[in-house]
Amino acid sequence: MKKIAILTSGGDAPGMNAAVRAAGKFALNTDLEVYGIKRGYLGMLNDEIFKISSQDLGGIIDRGGTSLLTARCPEFKDPKIRAIAAENLKKRGIDGLIVIGGDGSFHGADLLSKEHGIKVIGIPGTIDNDIAGTDYTIGFDTCLNTILDAIQKVRDTATSHERTILIEVMGRNAGDLALYASMAGGGDGILIPEQDNPIEVLAYQIQQRRRRGKLHDIILVAEGVGSAHTVAEELKKKVHTDVRIVVLGHVQRGGTPSGFDRVLGTKMGAKAVQLLLEEKGCLMIGIEGNQIVTHPIEYAWEGQRRNHMEDYELTQVLSK
Amino acid sequence: MKKIAILTSGGDAPGMNAAVRAAGKFALNTDLEVYGIKRGYLGMLNDEIFKISSQDLGGIIDRGGTSLLTARCPEFKDPKIRAIAAENLKKRGIDGLIVIGGDGSFHGADLLSKEHGIKVIGIPGTIDNDIAGTDYTIGFDTCLNTILDAIQKVRDTATSHERTILIEVMGRNAGDLALYASMAGGGDGILIPEQDNPIEVLAYQIQQRRRRGKLHDIILVAEGVGSAHTVAEELKKKVHTDVRIVVLGHVQRGGTPSGFDRVLGTKMGAKAVQLLLEEKGCLMIGIEGNQIVTHPIEYAWEGQRRNHMEDYELTQVLSK
Amino acid sequence: MKKIAILTSGGDAPGMNAAVRAAGKFALNTDLEVYGIKRGYLGMLNDEIFKISSQDLGGIIDRGGTSLLTARCPEFKDPKIRAIAAENLKKRGIDGLIVIGGDGSFHGADLLSKEHGIKVIGIPGTIDNDIAGTDYTIGFDTCLNTILDAIQKVRDTATSHERTILIEVMGRNAGDLALYASMAGGGDGILIPEQDNPIEVLAYQIQQRRRRGKLHDIILVAEGVGSAHTVAEELKKKVHTDVRIVVLGHVQRGGTPSGFDRVLGTKMGAKAVQLLLEEKGCLMIGIEGNQIVTHPIEYAWEGQRRNHMEDYELTQVLSK
Amino acid sequence: MKKIAILTSGGDAPGMNAAVRAAGKFALNTDLEVYGIKRGYLGMLNDEIFKISSQDLGGIIDRGGTSLLTARCPEFKDPKIRAIAAENLKKRGIDGLIVIGGDGSFHGADLLSKEHGIKVIGIPGTIDNDIAGTDYTIGFDTCLNTILDAIQKVRDTATSHERTILIEVMGRNAGDLALYASMAGGGDGILIPEQDNPIEVLAYQIQQRRRRGKLHDIILVAEGVGSAHTVAEELKKKVHTDVRIVVLGHVQRGGTPSGFDRVLGTKMGAKAVQLLLEEKGCLMIGIEGNQIVTHPIEYAWEGQRRNHMEDYELTQVLSK
Repeated sequence: MKKIAILTSGGDAPGMNAAVRAAGKFALNTDLEVYGIKRGYLGMLNDEIFKISSQDLGGIIDRGGTSLLTARCPEFKDPKIRAIAAENLKKRGIDGLIVIGGDGSFHGADLLSKEHGIKVIGIPGTIDNDIAGTDYTIGFDTCLNTILDAIQKVRDTATSHERTILIEVMGRNAGDLALYASMAGGGDGILIPEQDNPIEVLAYQIQQRRRRGKLHDIILVAEGVGSAHTVAEELKKKVHTDVRIVVLGHVQRGGTPSGFDRVLGTKMGAKAVQLLLEEKGCLMIGIEGNQIVTHPIEYAWEGQRRNHMEDYELTQVLSK
Repeated sequence: MKKIAILTSGGDAPGMNAAVRAAGKFALNTDLEVYGIKRGYLGMLNDEIFKISSQDLGGIIDRGGTSLLTARCPEFKDPKIRAIAAENLKKRGIDGLIVIGGDGSFHGADLLSKEHGIKVIGIPGTIDNDIAGTDYTIGFDTCLNTILDAIQKVRDTATSHERTILIEVMGRNAGDLALYASMAGGGDGILIPEQDNPIEVLAYQIQQRRRRGKLHDIILVAEGVGSAHTVAEELKKKVHTDVRIVVLGHVQRGGTPSGFDRVLGTKMGAKAVQLLLEEKGCLMIGIEGNQIVTHPIEYAWEGQRRNHMEDYELTQVLSK
Repeated sequence: MKKIAILTSGGDAPGMNAAVRAAGKFALNTDLEVYGIKRGYLGMLNDEIFKISSQDLGGIIDRGGTSLLTARCPEFKDPKIRAIAAENLKKRGIDGLIVIGGDGSFHGADLLSKEHGIKVIGIPGTIDNDIAGTDYTIGFDTCLNTILDAIQKVRDTATSHERTILIEVMGRNAGDLALYASMAGGGDGILIPEQDNPIEVLAYQIQQRRRRGKLHDIILVAEGVGSAHTVAEELKKKVHTDVRIVVLGHVQRGGTPSGFDRVLGTKMGAKAVQLLLEEKGCLMIGIEGNQIVTHPIEYAWEGQRRNHMEDYELTQVLSK
Repeated sequence: MKKIAILTSGGDAPGMNAAVRAAGKFALNTDLEVYGIKRGYLGMLNDEIFKISSQDLGGIIDRGGTSLLTARCPEFKDPKIRAIAAENLKKRGIDGLIVIGGDGSFHGADLLSKEHGIKVIGIPGTIDNDIAGTDYTIGFDTCLNTILDAIQKVRDTATSHERTILIEVMGRNAGDLALYASMAGGGDGILIPEQDNPIEVLAYQIQQRRRRGKLHDIILVAEGVGSAHTVAEELKKKVHTDVRIVVLGHVQRGGTPSGFDRVLGTKMGAKAVQLLLEEKGCLMIGIEGNQIVTHPIEYAWEGQRRNHMEDYELTQVLSK
């Protein structure tokens, strides 16, 4: 391995920059030449590839988003398009690629590898924590703290006005953000895609709380369950109380990354370069049991995510 | 004056607790007996009135919301209802009342005073900064900082994805939050109720930015202009770019109050008690030219708010 | 098991309240009676023991410090004193005790158990992360974020003035805070008790940075290495540059706990009650490999902490 | 006026970047050429002067410190040195200069103007708020919030351990930071240079608090009064309690600027350019009564600062 490239892909996540920085610095400290690809696969296709120097890696570790930019690139599903993109790496002699993103991005990397012999390493970067093979994805911890900060602010109003407030958070397939935000934020109810918790149960929980003298509620709703708006309308019919909604939206993606995400990104970024130096490829990096581990890259979408049933039950008990 | 009462009314605002604490502590340090009224005028009506002790005032200065709670009470428009509520004060010998809230709350206080001889002092507490007779209302500064924090987070994503993002902030009649958040947050465009800035102009500004190589935009929209959703739909038709929206909602109301709001609340709370000790009433307190001032309470809705035209022009120049 | 008690002991740490809340709520949800002991072992001795109700557990999950208070109690080393304290539990029929604190606190619990037959469970709560048998102690993650926030602020000044700034952080025997704060904060050098890194090496690193055009440095110093003041004086002699120090001190202990610490505290608190319900004792709880685990309580001081050598090496590489 | 230059001088303060940005952008929007001077007067002397473009002003409004850097330059007191520095402006045709800093920096500017005919405008930027002719200096508000955040963290520990903690904050001649941090932070005592409050009084206040059952205290000490260490030693002798100190140090200087400081910096920066366009000079800008005002520049050191006696008294009443 002589030359490697790094890209970020999919939704941006805080901590991606720590991974870019660590991979870049670690590689520059060996004999490797390092390239940055702008705008993910779109930039690979459009040949937006530049040689990374130490300067490009300064002052980014504490910034949210991704300094390499990201973009959607649906045309990458087309093998002919991938061939053009791969050629942009090959003409520079780049034979190793680090992809920081979600499982969709890993999938693209896997195809690049199989079709064009580029060694690829996937680093899980997404706030949703929805990738198999890792306990945490880069960005999840920061996002959890952002949501907790929002809960604290919303609770000021919920308490002062004695209202039921539904907070819609990200998580299309994975309810992790809603679940752990509720556990850590002292939430009073949750709706997540993994659990078929009917509105009736939620309404019953709220009514029980009223009976115990609790006059306000914070309910966490993962977007995968449906829009908070619809949930609120249904809930209102059942509990006859003032139900308001807060949709956190893009605010959740950004922000100064937490220490946890920066440490995670740093370790994963350095590990990715080590693997390429050992001429390994088609792997994803994960953290399991507080150890940096690797899996075949397809594990990201074929593997089974850890079941959070126990934590869900605990949250239900504590929200009583 | 022997006995006074304090209530908070309307939307909660960070810093209200500082005003309650200062008024309470200052009064307890004189010969006054101090009462707290829960849930604003609704609690006055329902006789939710309690004697405040030093303990009730501890540990609240750094908390958002209002420890006295607040509620809507549309029935207070009825003179008969007001008579019942006033009686709850009189039977305790309370002849002074401090009302912390917006101009609607001041209006109720004014009527209580005129009809039932209770001396009232209004303290402007609302995040909207939409009250005449004061440069700042309690809560505005904290809310501005909350919005700036959100802008910073959203910008991470806007930059990483090169998008136009509209952020809808509070402000039904007053565009202060949108205006100063844009000035302080480096916003790239604003829509506020005070200015008839057609969508065309905003679209033109965005196109000009593209020509100068700026690939993302943060636009602040005051809710008084209309929903960010509608604005986004119209804008999309004109700029052919990916326009996303963020509705900050209730998150804006809460949070640990800023130093500015705590100092403001503290000074206003103490001043209100001083005025009552001097047997004054039917006044609102303001801050003008960094001095605590008073106006007849009706000034809040009859007076003219300071014109922010010059700051609007400056923001437009700087967002180029 | 019918009645259990909870205490916090040693230095306070953010997230202790989450553990208290979870243990309390979980226990109240079973047939258990739950008692709180104020001021740790001192309160046990002075019989400051009260029955915990649901109300005592509300509104504490997002607060730093410990709602149960903590205190030093050197006299607890005396078996006669411990006998008096144990009697205060026994006279109430309390036969299970949850101790949240560091390894010194666990030691006291172990003796209580051996001498007086009280079943004890230790939950590791300390910002230093210096307890064997757990990857993380409650409070470490929040403290890491607090230090990172300080680094960011100090860097503003270090950059603007082009200075070398030493930041002294907590950690008497364990350099974890300094190490991971440097890794996550982009630090330019570290001194930790586990590594015999002479001042000469640090001075050399700084001189190398100057040669590469870097005009400011942030150096993390764990208190266990010696005072930042002394280090700074020595360093000045060698690098002939303006060296300033910042001693973070007690600021590091406090603050709203992070999501990670709240989740950790919550899971450990609930687990402690489960163990007592199973009539188990003399155990400490840990988190290893993202799983809640248990060890004999003496493992806390007899066990071997995980070696961070590899992370130290990585940090050295990245700070080049 | 055709060409102007901007420099920042003295200690860095959050919000300086907003002033640089506004002055730069506003000037670029007129016919002016704008230059940045690096490292204050030292850079003027060393000819570190560069033409500012729009790119230099992007992404700085939300950053602490100063993007123009700052440095000490004691040799600037020498008229011959000033002549060399002035020549570096003149050879470029620069005849207007904006100086952002404290009164010492204004003094240098005044001499440059009198000796070399350069039109100078001073913008007050320092966290200490110690300049006459303005209610607020840029940076004070952010610093106040930083101190309040520290108070909150320290209070967690003070409360949990029932301790007296002295917090030493900046302010050599002006006690504003200590005073308003105490007012806004619910402090229990203050020592500021403007008031001769003997240790005995402070000790008495603490003893009174103990009598009322308050078991912890947060005392704010302005550095101008002497080191917190010495104060603590004296206090210990009198109150026989555990007194700890926290020296906030450089942490106070940095951080994302608050909305208030960014708005203030923005308005002052734009105003400075307007004044130069009107061919005015030898002025300092201030904010008084929420209006941007100007004074002859020597007012900064000859004028009288507003007296805060009344606020001091109020703080004393409220800390009871």
